[in-house]
Amino acid sequence: MILIFLGTAGSGKTTITASFGEYLEKNGKSVGYVNLDTGVKKLPYRPDIDVRDIITVEELMKEGYGPNGAIVESYDRLLSHAEGIVGGILELDEERDYLLIDTPGQMESFLFHDFGIRITEHLSEPLVAYLFSPEILKKPRDYCFVRFFAIMIALRLGTTTVPVLNKVDLIKEELPSIRRLLEEVDYLNARLRLDPSMQGLLASRICSFLPEVSSPVRVVYASAKTGEGFDELETLSYEHYCTCGDLT
Amino acid sequence: MILIFLGTAGSGKTTITASFGEYLEKNGKSVGYVNLDTGVKKLPYRPDIDVRDIITVEELMKEGYGPNGAIVESYDRLLSHAEGIVGGILELDEERDYLLIDTPGQMESFLFHDFGIRITEHLSEPLVAYLFSPEILKKPRDYCFVRFFAIMIALRLGTTTVPVLNKVDLIKEELPSIRRLLEEVDYLNARLRLDPSMQGLLASRICSFLPEVSSPVRVVYASAKTGEGFDELETLSYEHYCTCGDLT
Repeated sequence: MILIFLGTAGSGKTTITASFGEYLEKNGKSVGYVNLDTGVKKLPYRPDIDVRDIITVEELMKEGYGPNGAIVESYDRLLSHAEGIVGGILELDEERDYLLIDTPGQMESFLFHDFGIRITEHLSEPLVAYLFSPEILKKPRDYCFVRFFAIMIALRLGTTTVPVLNKVDLIKEELPSIRRLLEEVDYLNARLRLDPSMQGLLASRICSFLPEVSSPVRVVYASAKTGEGFDELETLSYEHYCTCGDLT
Repeated sequence: MILIFLGTAGSGKTTITASFGEYLEKNGKSVGYVNLDTGVKKLPYRPDIDVRDIITVEELMKEGYGPNGAIVESYDRLLSHAEGIVGGILELDEERDYLLIDTPGQMESFLFHDFGIRITEHLSEPLVAYLFSPEILKKPRDYCFVRFFAIMIALRLGTTTVPVLNKVDLIKEELPSIRRLLEEVDYLNARLRLDPSMQGLLASRICSFLPEVSSPVRVVYASAKTGEGFDELETLSYEHYCTCGDLT
């Protein structure tokens, strides 16, 4: 079972890769770890496959690139290694119960760069966990943005994508109202209609299509710190695997 | 008139800021330049406002941050300066005919970080030019992705957003078929229906909503290298300003 953690820099991909992996191992599962981030300095898990063995952002900066240029260049250079990386991932996937893939620090290096496409298109039925933080959820339209963004990922990568609200340990009290806005489209729509701005109008129009575009979405509420939601994430990965993967 | 160039790292924001500014100046317009990228090393234009006067990614890396952490941290630190930056932009906007804003190298630092919201929400009717490169357009579903992504930007920032296909000098021959897929939703939909994959199905469903979600879109075909499309971009900025700004 392949689980890909995707999200913007700071959304907690690396931390959850480590802690969810630890959780699975404690439950007797064998876990493989893949790091696709050329810019990370230290990892809290021991990667079985690590793109930094091929190239790092730091090396490229020493060659004279600025940080943005170095990030892009690192994935440009990784392109010619994509086949080998995919081969390694598929092999590891056969050996282990779970394979956790930690993606580039900057989400766009995976989502907008051929590298991400080349890696995901050859994996068998990976599940993408789209991580986002509570800080991004300020107004009702932000919920619409996040819900649609998960669909954009599915469209771009061709993967089943589950939205994972990370860092829920920080929002104990607000969680019920956040859940409602994330899960009940009708309620979200009613709230959006109260916003008369152009933005509110656009959000309301986009949001009304959500039920037609995506099947009812299960959102995972997780904390890499406390382990909340890890059971749900494991169940989802397993269900996804059983309904889509070849179990004949 | 405020024009914000937004796009992934490598989409050509900085280059087009310089060359479009030069084009406007040659046509007798006064132009102000704003750099919001904490990671850029050298700029091909002289910024009137430059966030690197406050903080740079390089400095933060010397403090021990990795490249991704340093990028995020730089915008975290800029948050407390947002008001001052906006004040400077508004002042400059009054002095100049055009104000060109070059955004963070990594698009997500602007789109997913409060910094971007805080800057744009106080500007009067900025027009966002969403730059993307031909490399991203491989399959019909990629056109759907790009068109919807422009809508996502409008939703997130509350700005009118025009998709700008940059680097058209690289795709002379393919341009007519690219234009057709970008502009004719019915044609795009017909092409999408030929793709029986889950991804094709999702794209087709999303795409059929495009006419209802967004008004007919004018796409600009530009080249920062040859200056193609700059007249169109100028016209669009002006039209946007005249129809939305306060000209009473």
